[in-house]
Amino acid sequence: MYASNSPFAEKLTADNAALVMVDHQTGLFQFLPSVEPMKLRNNVIALAEIGKRFALPTVLTTSWAQGPNGPTMPELVAMYPNHVVTERDTVDVWDHADTVKAIRATGRKKLIIAALDTTTCLSFAAIGAVRAGFDAYAVVDASSTFDDLNQQAAMHRLASAGVVVTTWVPILAELAANTIKNGVHIADLLTAHTGSYAGAFANFAATARNADVVQDQLKAARKAIRA
Amino acid sequence: MYASNSPFAEKLTADNAALVMVDHQTGLFQFLPSVEPMKLRNNVIALAEIGKRFALPTVLTTSWAQGPNGPTMPELVAMYPNHVVTERDTVDVWDHADTVKAIRATGRKKLIIAALDTTTCLSFAAIGAVRAGFDAYAVVDASSTFDDLNQQAAMHRLASAGVVVTTWVPILAELAANTIKNGVHIADLLTAHTGSYAGAFANFAATARNADVVQDQLKAARKAIRA
Amino acid sequence: MYASNSPFAEKLTADNAALVMVDHQTGLFQFLPSVEPMKLRNNVIALAEIGKRFALPTVLTTSWAQGPNGPTMPELVAMYPNHVVTERDTVDVWDHADTVKAIRATGRKKLIIAALDTTTCLSFAAIGAVRAGFDAYAVVDASSTFDDLNQQAAMHRLASAGVVVTTWVPILAELAANTIKNGVHIADLLTAHTGSYAGAFANFAATARNADVVQDQLKAARKAIRA
Amino acid sequence: MYASNSPFAEKLTADNAALVMVDHQTGLFQFLPSVEPMKLRNNVIALAEIGKRFALPTVLTTSWAQGPNGPTMPELVAMYPNHVVTERDTVDVWDHADTVKAIRATGRKKLIIAALDTTTCLSFAAIGAVRAGFDAYAVVDASSTFDDLNQQAAMHRLASAGVVVTTWVPILAELAANTIKNGVHIADLLTAHTGSYAGAFANFAATARNADVVQDQLKAARKAIRA
Amino acid sequence: MYASNSPFAEKLTADNAALVMVDHQTGLFQFLPSVEPMKLRNNVIALAEIGKRFALPTVLTTSWAQGPNGPTMPELVAMYPNHVVTERDTVDVWDHADTVKAIRATGRKKLIIAALDTTTCLSFAAIGAVRAGFDAYAVVDASSTFDDLNQQAAMHRLASAGVVVTTWVPILAELAANTIKNGVHIADLLTAHTGSYAGAFANFAATARNADVVQDQLKAARKAIRA
Amino acid sequence: MYASNSPFAEKLTADNAALVMVDHQTGLFQFLPSVEPMKLRNNVIALAEIGKRFALPTVLTTSWAQGPNGPTMPELVAMYPNHVVTERDTVDVWDHADTVKAIRATGRKKLIIAALDTTTCLSFAAIGAVRAGFDAYAVVDASSTFDDLNQQAAMHRLASAGVVVTTWVPILAELAANTIKNGVHIADLLTAHTGSYAGAFANFAATARNADVVQDQLKAARKAIRA
Amino acid sequence: MYASNSPFAEKLTADNAALVMVDHQTGLFQFLPSVEPMKLRNNVIALAEIGKRFALPTVLTTSWAQGPNGPTMPELVAMYPNHVVTERDTVDVWDHADTVKAIRATGRKKLIIAALDTTTCLSFAAIGAVRAGFDAYAVVDASSTFDDLNQQAAMHRLASAGVVVTTWVPILAELAANTIKNGVHIADLLTAHTGSYAGAFANFAATARNADVVQDQLKAARKAIRA
Amino acid sequence: MYASNSPFAEKLTADNAALVMVDHQTGLFQFLPSVEPMKLRNNVIALAEIGKRFALPTVLTTSWAQGPNGPTMPELVAMYPNHVVTERDTVDVWDHADTVKAIRATGRKKLIIAALDTTTCLSFAAIGAVRAGFDAYAVVDASSTFDDLNQQAAMHRLASAGVVVTTWVPILAELAANTIKNGVHIADLLTAHTGSYAGAFANFAATARNADVVQDQLKAARKAIRA
Repeated sequence: MYASNSPFAEKLTADNAALVMVDHQTGLFQFLPSVEPMKLRNNVIALAEIGKRFALPTVLTTSWAQGPNGPTMPELVAMYPNHVVTERDTVDVWDHADTVKAIRATGRKKLIIAALDTTTCLSFAAIGAVRAGFDAYAVVDASSTFDDLNQQAAMHRLASAGVVVTTWVPILAELAANTIKNGVHIADLLTAHTGSYAGAFANFAATARNADVVQDQLKAARKAIRA
Repeated sequence: MYASNSPFAEKLTADNAALVMVDHQTGLFQFLPSVEPMKLRNNVIALAEIGKRFALPTVLTTSWAQGPNGPTMPELVAMYPNHVVTERDTVDVWDHADTVKAIRATGRKKLIIAALDTTTCLSFAAIGAVRAGFDAYAVVDASSTFDDLNQQAAMHRLASAGVVVTTWVPILAELAANTIKNGVHIADLLTAHTGSYAGAFANFAATARNADVVQDQLKAARKAIRA
Repeated sequence: MYASNSPFAEKLTADNAALVMVDHQTGLFQFLPSVEPMKLRNNVIALAEIGKRFALPTVLTTSWAQGPNGPTMPELVAMYPNHVVTERDTVDVWDHADTVKAIRATGRKKLIIAALDTTTCLSFAAIGAVRAGFDAYAVVDASSTFDDLNQQAAMHRLASAGVVVTTWVPILAELAANTIKNGVHIADLLTAHTGSYAGAFANFAATARNADVVQDQLKAARKAIRA
Repeated sequence: MYASNSPFAEKLTADNAALVMVDHQTGLFQFLPSVEPMKLRNNVIALAEIGKRFALPTVLTTSWAQGPNGPTMPELVAMYPNHVVTERDTVDVWDHADTVKAIRATGRKKLIIAALDTTTCLSFAAIGAVRAGFDAYAVVDASSTFDDLNQQAAMHRLASAGVVVTTWVPILAELAANTIKNGVHIADLLTAHTGSYAGAFANFAATARNADVVQDQLKAARKAIRA
Repeated sequence: MYASNSPFAEKLTADNAALVMVDHQTGLFQFLPSVEPMKLRNNVIALAEIGKRFALPTVLTTSWAQGPNGPTMPELVAMYPNHVVTERDTVDVWDHADTVKAIRATGRKKLIIAALDTTTCLSFAAIGAVRAGFDAYAVVDASSTFDDLNQQAAMHRLASAGVVVTTWVPILAELAANTIKNGVHIADLLTAHTGSYAGAFANFAATARNADVVQDQLKAARKAIRA
Repeated sequence: MYASNSPFAEKLTADNAALVMVDHQTGLFQFLPSVEPMKLRNNVIALAEIGKRFALPTVLTTSWAQGPNGPTMPELVAMYPNHVVTERDTVDVWDHADTVKAIRATGRKKLIIAALDTTTCLSFAAIGAVRAGFDAYAVVDASSTFDDLNQQAAMHRLASAGVVVTTWVPILAELAANTIKNGVHIADLLTAHTGSYAGAFANFAATARNADVVQDQLKAARKAIRA
Repeated sequence: MYASNSPFAEKLTADNAALVMVDHQTGLFQFLPSVEPMKLRNNVIALAEIGKRFALPTVLTTSWAQGPNGPTMPELVAMYPNHVVTERDTVDVWDHADTVKAIRATGRKKLIIAALDTTTCLSFAAIGAVRAGFDAYAVVDASSTFDDLNQQAAMHRLASAGVVVTTWVPILAELAANTIKNGVHIADLLTAHTGSYAGAFANFAATARNADVVQDQLKAARKAIRA
Repeated sequence: MYASNSPFAEKLTADNAALVMVDHQTGLFQFLPSVEPMKLRNNVIALAEIGKRFALPTVLTTSWAQGPNGPTMPELVAMYPNHVVTERDTVDVWDHADTVKAIRATGRKKLIIAALDTTTCLSFAAIGAVRAGFDAYAVVDASSTFDDLNQQAAMHRLASAGVVVTTWVPILAELAANTIKNGVHIADLLTAHTGSYAGAFANFAATARNADVVQDQLKAARKAIRA
């Protein structure tokens, strides 16, 4: 059994979790390719959509948004049109009073965090969260960095620091929990933001639509070949 | 200089090319992962969109659509709601009279071909096209196959057979040709269907918000294309 | 020396272990390619066969089996024709009363767990097992997920949570323990489900056709296990 | 259009093709890992099965079968129990009179060739076939070699020499041609020897079995979430 | 022996070659990662430096430089401060009169071409060059594209079209030819723009500090080239 | 919250950290390719430059500098022309009295360490640092080793030993902390030593040429840091 | 500082370490390709040579040596002609009385362990060693397994179990410690068993042929070690 | 059938082939890692040994041997102690009169060529050979270059130029031809210079210790070759 201060002692729920999205800005997005850009875009949107569907208190923050880091990704702006986004003059969210205040105001124990990039903003936010007494979940596929070695090193550092290293699909699944009640969220998000599930779901839906014809055809083919 | 029967002797234009999309069906889509599924989905849609924007005569065909190959991908159905799709009882499009008729009816010399999968439907369609006297362009990233060795072998086979091995971005660029007239197609399609350009373009647009010349240029191009 | 609550304090045996196979369903199988599908199929069957050969109490469970997750893989149905399979309306096995009851009914301390996919069902089952006081062994090659980053992140998360990250061959070897008594299981399963051992064993057997001592030893082992 | 001496001028059919399987021996199998061994085993068996299903005249040959190359793979022996296998004292099949005689005796123009290994026995057999006036199809995934560089170099050499570089699935598809008549062969072989199709087909068959329940469930879930 | 119209019939020299650098613009640079960006930057500069050291007539051209493609890379601007750069409104250099004029004005038979990206601007420039009667050398490592599949497809297309597929180091070596006269260029450029040679040369120079013959040889070569 | 003896309990600052660069020698540099040499060179220089910009007490040390390990990399010699470099007759820096003395003389609690190679000099220095009561940060991308397996094994060993596994960009970002005060360091170093940021920054600067607010902000930052 | 029961509390020396080589048998060697075979052979021999040069008490053990696992590798037999090799009828060395006795008879606290394969014999030997109160060093590059996922899973399991995950070069370097006394061992073994150092050393030696100080230093070291 | 001027028209034999080894020098060896160094060393020695065993006229040549390219690899010097090695002041062997003279003096039609590096010395030597009327065989695994893209580009260039792209094992096998007469060369060289065959052969030999027929066959072959 886990010690009570382990992040694994208690599960993630829509009631104990907040979402913190750090520096998902257009400038950073374009030069951090360790996660393939089309997948990164989908992963970031999917994570933000999870926040909305499960009504998680959400903190958005940027750094140097008028500089090369660029403004918040337009996809996120469209999802959070009136949300306050704290612009930090610090790399680490825990060094910036307004952002810390916003995080504490969520009143949640568990922080789901993604950031550009993985080695700096994500690592500092997640490790700082543990330092501040939170459970931290680092969503490494809605984050990205310079190259594969940086990504591997960051995962080792995060795991060593007691951060839960994870990705967006298990965040969705852990929050959804009951598939009767929440299965539609799983189906919608996986269909929209993973190519593999999208293909499989589309095929499932189509196949299930005209099953009789299909079964007859199969039986006929097998009968023919054995005759 | 190329011999006149070389596919390289003449460039691809909106007037000499037709588009042939073979077996982009939900069943095949889900078990042919050599192109990452999220990228494959975007590549297929992008290629179909190119066909529409440049008004290419287009042939759609399927095989065993009521079997495990599944129906046409819903994204394509939405784009071509009333288009005749030939259902073949042959693997090779050139063995199926109605499909051959549809291809010949385009009246074009150059065939842009993509198919699921790369080693069979694409290879047979492209090699058969050369056999039938056409220039064939095999779009290997809007096609996919079982694994990387199959993909490499197919590229060698296609190149040996005199087929132009290519991808969808150069198809777009060769057809667009003039960036004053057609730059908006390039910008729209790369933004929608490649993560890297999407990020870069979003950042450019945001950064350049005050750069009037750039904005005016873009607006003019969009106005021109819709006029 | 390990603390008594470490999963490493005690070895896995046919008497202290149960097998839990979560969501090995045809729908999930087809769109989770991080383990190459032919290897995944063999790994899943091999793990199930280990359970049968060492008479491990076994829990089978599915989720959304009439939905896109699909029914239990036919290979497993053939091996467990009359076994009760709990159909869950939850992602996490520990949220579903009947499945938890089935696991506790095994009376075993150590749970060998595999699941589709690695980041959700496997991680939740294994971490929940530790939370519930069990030792958990996550068999990551009889599980699979969307891509390599998801797989790496899951291994870091599992290791951090105190789960034993492992694969099916060491599960077999740890249970077999004595090669006189159980070598035939090792030989049979590695031959059937790994290509490399299959090739080597076939060659050895052929080369050694006249080596009486080897042949007699093998025959004796086979006879002993069936006696 | 292809010159009449191009291997691409005419398609592969059950009437113009023979199968030549060179040195699929247990010793060679085990130390030539460029194709993953479990896949290689399946690819070799699949190719042999194609030969049987389409009644292709087939030549089997070995080299140094009592030495480290080992005897013919037992899977092939089981498929061809009474077939004459020529044991060569030459590396190149075209240097061995009895093997050449057996090849010529097939009376076919097109030779489908696989061999262990790719760089030697396959390359020599395929290039020698062209030298002798045949069309040669090198099946590079039912062949294997030391490492990836050897495999890439071999594919370049084969393509340069006018050999068709291919894999077993397109051989099957080209011979099957008509899916009404031969679809069962495609379904059976892909199901048995590719993990991805196996998963997809099993799911298709299962989904199609109980479609009504599935459709109702889906509609209910979507209605519930919008209520 | 090569036919006289083969690009391999004659070697590349400082007298028969011109350099064409297409679209090395900051915008394109940042989102075309198939060549790792630090290496790409060095490869592009190295190629430009080769042009200067061997006094090759050089054509620089850009497209949509005020748009997201961005202005010419500042490193190139610094090397060619007063050079005319043609701004094209076409993707293909051969569709733009001023650029074609500039290329023809070089009076050279062989064109060394690099471009961003590989699949479009490089492929069109190189294939168009052959169409126009030139020998074309495509420098694929001073070019870059979206991903590895695009790069592989482009290499197959270029090779099929009769373009010489190459990289910058062999361009340097073929032009340098005589190592007494030109060894200093090889040493300088490899040291500055490849990490591996840089390390090896630094170590050699340090180790050999007392080896007078080596040091003298180097000094003499440097003196000769500046004389 | 972290235990007070955790390296994660307190952040890295310009006041609590020292830099230890071990065996960045030309001989070792050339035969340790797990980090691509051009990137390794840039990473090493960037880390050294961080030390200078944040005025970290710095220890340089070499081993067998007159042997095949070679002298200190000339780039570092140029940056530290008069710095004492301890030449050790031991592999482990903690076995060499003068080097230990130099480390202790820094008076800092946290040691940022990079070394050639990762498995020996870096591992011994970092693990020895923890043994000696320091917090250790292993900069794995300014270090390198024989191959990827060695690199992975070293990261596991370092993480297990309580060393912070990291790379140079997060070292820079953690020290910079405040982007108003220190953003210029981030911009300068990322531009000079990562290709991706270099491209993005060059494009941003060019695009924003007219965006006064951005330019003023940059100028102010540069002025502030030099004041 | 490490707790006294941490394997990191104390360094590895020629006085506190023993070497345990498990199942380096010809049969296993040939079908466990996760470490490339030519490198594996060299790594195994290098580790055995380290044992001899530092006079480590050494335990050799095999399993099913007359079966497909095969006899001890001939290279090891040549190095240990009269050494007792325990033949186990158990997979785990700690289940076999004679092998355990041999290990305990070494009287050493730290066990350097390598085995074929990594997931079974190495993992069981190393984890069992910790269970029995030893410090365990798992040499993962003188071990090998079926594929990369097995190797990664094994490294996670070993690290979690408190085993030091390492490779043979740091074992050599930690034992050598003093490069004046033991540098010759480092030079000899790296030259013989790593291609990269071999090349660099050969070049250094040739370049420095006249550098008397270096040559004398090497000669002195060799003389000292033989005295 | 091949045209008579095709390099594929006639097979490689000990009577029509010469060996040309270009720039296998210690300096170049150490910084050209596209072929893993331990494998490269073995591949180079194996190719040289083939030359000796089949008594091929052999040309050795170096460039800048007193510079950073370094002297001929000591392994080759040991094999060819009194052989004339031409030191060129040109990159291309065909620009250097003495080397060309040596090549022509072999009187052979087919040239087997390996060189460091692949993109320059190998490509120039092989393409120049075709230009001069020879058949050229480029041995790409006894050659090496900077990185994988350079290697791929070189293979495309060589294949386009009509050079046979190959590796050393098929060179050995094509020359050996008859396995009764020459099998011992195959066995000896593969055992010594490939890890995979070495393992398999060692196991075979051990397993078959009592199989008299195999042992006698091997002994007879060895006796025959030395007679």
